[in-house]
Amino acid sequence: MANKSITSRDLDFAKWYTDVVRAAKLADYTSVKGCIAIEPNGYAIWERMQYELDKKFKELGHVNVQMPLLIPENLLNKEKELVAGFAPELAWVTIGGRKELEERHCIRATSETLFCDYYKTHVRTYRDLPMLYNQWCNVLRWEKETRPFLRSREFLWQEGHTVHASEEDAIKETYQMAEVYKWFHHEILAIPSIIGLKTEKEKFAGAEFTITNEDMMYNGVCLQDGTSHYFGQKFSKAYDVKFTNKDNKLEHVYQTSWGIATRMIAALIMVHADDDGLVLPPRIAPRQVVIIPIGDDKKVLDLANTINTKLNKKNIISYIDNSDKSPGFKFAEAEVNGIPLRIEIGSRDLDNNELTVARRDTKEKSKVNVKEDIVKYVSKMLDTIQKDMYERALKRREELTFTAKDLKEMENILNTQPGFIHADWCGDSDCELKIKEIKGCKSRCIVDEPLVTGKCVCCGKKAKHHVIWGLQY
Amino acid sequence: MANKSITSRDLDFAKWYTDVVRAAKLADYTSVKGCIAIEPNGYAIWERMQYELDKKFKELGHVNVQMPLLIPENLLNKEKELVAGFAPELAWVTIGGRKELEERHCIRATSETLFCDYYKTHVRTYRDLPMLYNQWCNVLRWEKETRPFLRSREFLWQEGHTVHASEEDAIKETYQMAEVYKWFHHEILAIPSIIGLKTEKEKFAGAEFTITNEDMMYNGVCLQDGTSHYFGQKFSKAYDVKFTNKDNKLEHVYQTSWGIATRMIAALIMVHADDDGLVLPPRIAPRQVVIIPIGDDKKVLDLANTINTKLNKKNIISYIDNSDKSPGFKFAEAEVNGIPLRIEIGSRDLDNNELTVARRDTKEKSKVNVKEDIVKYVSKMLDTIQKDMYERALKRREELTFTAKDLKEMENILNTQPGFIHADWCGDSDCELKIKEIKGCKSRCIVDEPLVTGKCVCCGKKAKHHVIWGLQY
Repeated sequence: MANKSITSRDLDFAKWYTDVVRAAKLADYTSVKGCIAIEPNGYAIWERMQYELDKKFKELGHVNVQMPLLIPENLLNKEKELVAGFAPELAWVTIGGRKELEERHCIRATSETLFCDYYKTHVRTYRDLPMLYNQWCNVLRWEKETRPFLRSREFLWQEGHTVHASEEDAIKETYQMAEVYKWFHHEILAIPSIIGLKTEKEKFAGAEFTITNEDMMYNGVCLQDGTSHYFGQKFSKAYDVKFTNKDNKLEHVYQTSWGIATRMIAALIMVHADDDGLVLPPRIAPRQVVIIPIGDDKKVLDLANTINTKLNKKNIISYIDNSDKSPGFKFAEAEVNGIPLRIEIGSRDLDNNELTVARRDTKEKSKVNVKEDIVKYVSKMLDTIQKDMYERALKRREELTFTAKDLKEMENILNTQPGFIHADWCGDSDCELKIKEIKGCKSRCIVDEPLVTGKCVCCGKKAKHHVIWGLQY
Repeated sequence: MANKSITSRDLDFAKWYTDVVRAAKLADYTSVKGCIAIEPNGYAIWERMQYELDKKFKELGHVNVQMPLLIPENLLNKEKELVAGFAPELAWVTIGGRKELEERHCIRATSETLFCDYYKTHVRTYRDLPMLYNQWCNVLRWEKETRPFLRSREFLWQEGHTVHASEEDAIKETYQMAEVYKWFHHEILAIPSIIGLKTEKEKFAGAEFTITNEDMMYNGVCLQDGTSHYFGQKFSKAYDVKFTNKDNKLEHVYQTSWGIATRMIAALIMVHADDDGLVLPPRIAPRQVVIIPIGDDKKVLDLANTINTKLNKKNIISYIDNSDKSPGFKFAEAEVNGIPLRIEIGSRDLDNNELTVARRDTKEKSKVNVKEDIVKYVSKMLDTIQKDMYERALKRREELTFTAKDLKEMENILNTQPGFIHADWCGDSDCELKIKEIKGCKSRCIVDEPLVTGKCVCCGKKAKHHVIWGLQY
């Protein structure tokens, strides 16, 4: 019984995606072109994401700050590659307080500029380093084509910006934060992301190198989600951020930045959701268990309350749906919202000392004896769901993983069923451009794996790298 | 021994304020005119504020959302009073993606417009009501004179926007949220704010009425901090937000909004700080206890670790300063940062089985026997500090509270020592304007107290209201 307001995923994936966003009340379009309103159900997921990541960042010694929203044009212009990368997407404030501004200000699309401006006056000696700053904020990129969470003119994210006394420390930080994003994908979101290096063409504007987390969506299209950049001294030279090192000499700092955005909500949907709506992994679900009493028998309501209290005490986020809707309606609502586990309590079941537990991910229903330790049962079941969701996503990724030895093979794959295509590359960006001609296929990342054939998939010359290729959002 | 980097509060209050902000590393100026960088120490306070308020909002049934940053001009223009109120302070985006926009967009100065736009398409029947939405975000107001936290072009805040099925419910919400802000001031910030109604002249642009929290700064200048507005149907009529009521008739919703900002950090400083820097009430302090080992005797370090672990286990936020600075430097740093309690452990003291506990607020030092239950001792001491700080702020407020029966008296007070001036008012805005001529003195709020003399402090006619007047930030 598929949800009638949701188009089938196999019929029209794009339509299915926006249907799920709307049906689960995650976000809606607004009168502001290209910008969404994140609704309570969507924002609650973002709060859970913030909680898990922020805790991890702080454990690793990072602290939160807040830099300005606006960037004066002259400040922005100091780092040429960054400007070139973002110029087409900037929004400019030209009027403030009823006056034409002498210098226009852009709304931040990313904040390297502002952090450098800060570090320039606050870093003095190696004793001040590292400075491990992060901010949670909104950024704006004037995109033409937008879709809720996936690509929106304004989005929410965190951006870490750190400065270090040595190349070694900064590179270590860059890898560490890419691994944090990987941990977050695998352990919390149940998404088996692949980590790797971006090619020169695909790396962040101004970075020495970029490490990316690449996710595989259900339809075989890839999503970049969580990148970590090593800047070396590029920005610190452009913005003149220097420190006195241990040898009492002035040296430019070594810098990183790393960010992850509300785009993760898009990944969650496109990896796990189905034709009945959202399916949330228990570890990211704002509500893990819904208890639905059937009828208004006092015995039923009492048991619902007892179970709810017990679960909440053990930090399992449960709630009772005691609205005046019909049980069937409540089931469907819990399904579309992706609540991982549903407990149904009815008087007929209770006469047999039973209640029903239904998994959202597999739709499996089990009868549970009321005398069983329900907290233990639910807790174990949530762990199982989390693990199973990861395994299913991994299995899907593996089904959609291919290898190609030449362009012909690559083209065949992309025309049949896109996915992660493993193929060797000579390192020449002309080959990347030629591959892009096939349906816009791009290098996702360079992985640290043995070469596939030893020859470039495009030109056939000696290969340098094992690369994953694919279509992308 | 006053901190050398801080001007004396009695010599130059304005300079003292910015010195404290800088010395405690709360915020700094940036290359973006009128905008600050909130540094880790400042942002950590804001995170504590968010935590306490957000928890309370949610307990009362509110949910978080996120509306866009930008507002198209035609959407903004629908509510005339709001536009008139904010027009002088707006920043306008006129260029996006390298193109002149057909319609310019302002950056939100407040989001009534955007919430109405959302509610218009999402409210259908009385069953959907109330909708109790809140958002944590940044807003921009193009101020001319700015000072860190107190008045900044960009600031962070929360704005609650709720819609209800009846006037009664909406008014109840308006008062409830003003009381939440009062609770927050009194119980968490140790600031004895006074709650009251704003006059017609001073209320929020577009509101039917505004309830305000008014704080008294150490120098007798007042600060408005936490306002709650009742809109009635003004906005819902302008933006056409209707619902089908229980009688199956279309009716415009009843609306409120309420907000509190990073300005609270300015209040915290101006109420509690002293010539040695910040003084934080324990319930808002991001770090409540610093443990400073003197020397590197193993016995000293072991005890520091033991105490730190014990305190953290009981949710007292303590940390050990084991940096390579001198004890004197560490003491001064803990003082300037306003850490409520300092525990000094030295080997000489330990020979006598003692350690030293120093309060930040009073500078009192006590010797404590190591065999005493240190968690209990610290916990009780933190409660005492919290209580004492509130009492001192209340005493100061009372010292700076006056009554005036006529303009002459009012002028005398304002020329000698400003403060809260209780005086009756006829309700005529001409009288308000005349009073404003005395050093910019404004009505702070109408309080629910018996009249002072029964006659207007300005015109001498029959008084309608007991009003508190004062200079303001």
